[in-house]
Amino acid sequence: MPVLCKPSVAVPEYVISRHETLELAQRIHHDHGELQLALRLISRTGVRTRHLVQPPEVTLRHPGFEERNLVYAHEAKARIPAVVDEALRHAQLAANEIDTIIYVSCTGFMMPSMTAWMINNLGFRNDTRQLPIAQLGCAGGGAAINRAYDFCLAHPGMHALIVACEFCSLCYQPSDLAVGNLLADGLFGDAVAAAVVRGHGGTGVRLAGTSSRLLPGTEDWIAYSVRSTGFHFRLDPRVPTTMVQLAPHLGEAVAAQGWDVPSLDYCLVHAGGPRILDDLSRLLGISPALLRHSRATLTEYGNIAAASVLDALRRMIDSAPPREGARGLIAGFGPGITAEIALGTWTEDPSLVPSPTMSISTHRADHHDHSTSGDQSHTHPRG
Amino acid sequence: MPVLCKPSVAVPEYVISRHETLELAQRIHHDHGELQLALRLISRTGVRTRHLVQPPEVTLRHPGFEERNLVYAHEAKARIPAVVDEALRHAQLAANEIDTIIYVSCTGFMMPSMTAWMINNLGFRNDTRQLPIAQLGCAGGGAAINRAYDFCLAHPGMHALIVACEFCSLCYQPSDLAVGNLLADGLFGDAVAAAVVRGHGGTGVRLAGTSSRLLPGTEDWIAYSVRSTGFHFRLDPRVPTTMVQLAPHLGEAVAAQGWDVPSLDYCLVHAGGPRILDDLSRLLGISPALLRHSRATLTEYGNIAAASVLDALRRMIDSAPPREGARGLIAGFGPGITAEIALGTWTEDPSLVPSPTMSISTHRADHHDHSTSGDQSHTHPRG
Repeated sequence: MPVLCKPSVAVPEYVISRHETLELAQRIHHDHGELQLALRLISRTGVRTRHLVQPPEVTLRHPGFEERNLVYAHEAKARIPAVVDEALRHAQLAANEIDTIIYVSCTGFMMPSMTAWMINNLGFRNDTRQLPIAQLGCAGGGAAINRAYDFCLAHPGMHALIVACEFCSLCYQPSDLAVGNLLADGLFGDAVAAAVVRGHGGTGVRLAGTSSRLLPGTEDWIAYSVRSTGFHFRLDPRVPTTMVQLAPHLGEAVAAQGWDVPSLDYCLVHAGGPRILDDLSRLLGISPALLRHSRATLTEYGNIAAASVLDALRRMIDSAPPREGARGLIAGFGPGITAEIALGTWTEDPSLVPSPTMSISTHRADHHDHSTSGDQSHTHPRG
Repeated sequence: MPVLCKPSVAVPEYVISRHETLELAQRIHHDHGELQLALRLISRTGVRTRHLVQPPEVTLRHPGFEERNLVYAHEAKARIPAVVDEALRHAQLAANEIDTIIYVSCTGFMMPSMTAWMINNLGFRNDTRQLPIAQLGCAGGGAAINRAYDFCLAHPGMHALIVACEFCSLCYQPSDLAVGNLLADGLFGDAVAAAVVRGHGGTGVRLAGTSSRLLPGTEDWIAYSVRSTGFHFRLDPRVPTTMVQLAPHLGEAVAAQGWDVPSLDYCLVHAGGPRILDDLSRLLGISPALLRHSRATLTEYGNIAAASVLDALRRMIDSAPPREGARGLIAGFGPGITAEIALGTWTEDPSLVPSPTMSISTHRADHHDHSTSGDQSHTHPRG
């Protein structure tokens, strides 16, 4: 069965704290009739710091949709190579051993997609399959894992690379004054994440099954309004009630594996907001401790869209890899409202022992230059 | 092995002829320095008629990117149900027997994607997987077939539905005066296509293998410039030389099946322009007759992007289904430059005999209402 290896995650170098966010909101929206409500909502997110690809004062300007997309492409090309390189090292694979690239991002639009640029510039074979997904939003991380699982099942022995590149700050819309939008302005952050799903071997989450769900009649709850100014995020006040409807589906997915929820050893879900985590803990009857890695993502990085579940997994592995066979759930939630759920058990592959001197690092070295990346590694968090 | 069943295709009711296109170009661009070149290029496309979702005079106006996307969503919702319904009937499946929906479209952007709307309104199960792909352009039809193939291999017995919805006329950019753009204005047409890839059983192309290729260093050749006015199509003068580089890859994909090119019984490729078809015939050493269905798509509908290969397959089956075991190639080409190639043999499933009175039509009848669709069926072409 396919194994989801340790993700690599990088957040950009510009940091904005909750305190600074609240100050900015007060300054910019001092005459907004619902300012106090917006401030209260932002305070309650639990987000302490977020990272941005540009300084806050630049982020607040809107230079136009065209310029925003050019910034997106520029920043993606600068920041993705190092993250991909580290994800490949975690999986002990070289770029030319990857058979498909699944690229999820809802915060910029390019055609050709970044997958073409990656194949041309990062040492991937020119017969690597490209699967760019832009329209699943925050569910994209879960969807990428599940489509990588499908791919590896279809082609035993082949490997998939997932890249989640989310620069949510490039969707900041200064003209949007709905309370849901002000909340979003204080909630979302930027990050790049990557992870390999190995078709054979590997240390990580051995994927045992997946499940996809759409909640009927919730299309309007989370949506983009696509305008000349770009993507405008629309958040319905009913969204916080989502987990009441989704929790039973998570339970069913667990049961479909012949497991029960109390037996779960970890639970890595899209940290879209604090209610998701509080409600899931209560509704599924699981300890909040099981959700601590997702909460840490939210607290330190904000809602980083499709990158969230990969960051939660990275945090769990950094904190203490689970014991062999430990059972867990990974779930992305996003517009639709869509849930993409994966179940898996932790596995250690003793045949693959990481070594800093192994040759894969060397024969990939000429494919890209890390010096262009302004990313800070997750091993040196500033936030 | 998965079987690609007969596609359903619908083109909209507004028709523009080559003659009308040339007249319009002369009127609008009478003072353009390269008008004669543009007219010559449009004349040479071989496109006789194209179909549009709006009357030509409305198409020529640009009401803004926001309004364009709203028109896209409205027209997609009006036109997709009947096409999907027919594709399901061709495959003798009900909507609730579909396990994944692969939606390809590069001419409008929605989040949630149309896949969510389809699940909510057309009788699909709420655990149907959603795979919206927006960034592969004209290669999207081939990519959808190949990802459906992967999905069915991964989950034996499950079925995939492909929907290609391309309203290229909604990307018309009156301010874009480059010759490549004027050519595009006279080349692209609108269409909706759908087809089921059955995981077991079915009459159609039994998919034997797939291949994906990216031509190195051609990212700029076909691209969108994303602006406040929407997607601007950029076409490099080098694009017509593409087949010189791609033809060898097609040959390799055929050889990988243990076949040789002269043994091919059909060749259904993305009819992007006349050079693709002329060059492939010459470079692969195959009779132009093998490409006649692709040429008919180009002549009667224009370049309909991701829907092209599905329409060529539909034409072949309508004209005369191949003999059992007949070998063929299906290939989508698009930005990257990317080729998505599928190889397969024709198969008839005697256990599935279409009947106009079978129950699947009845128990799906309440899921949607065809009366909202202004589409003309492909069985009554106006062009």
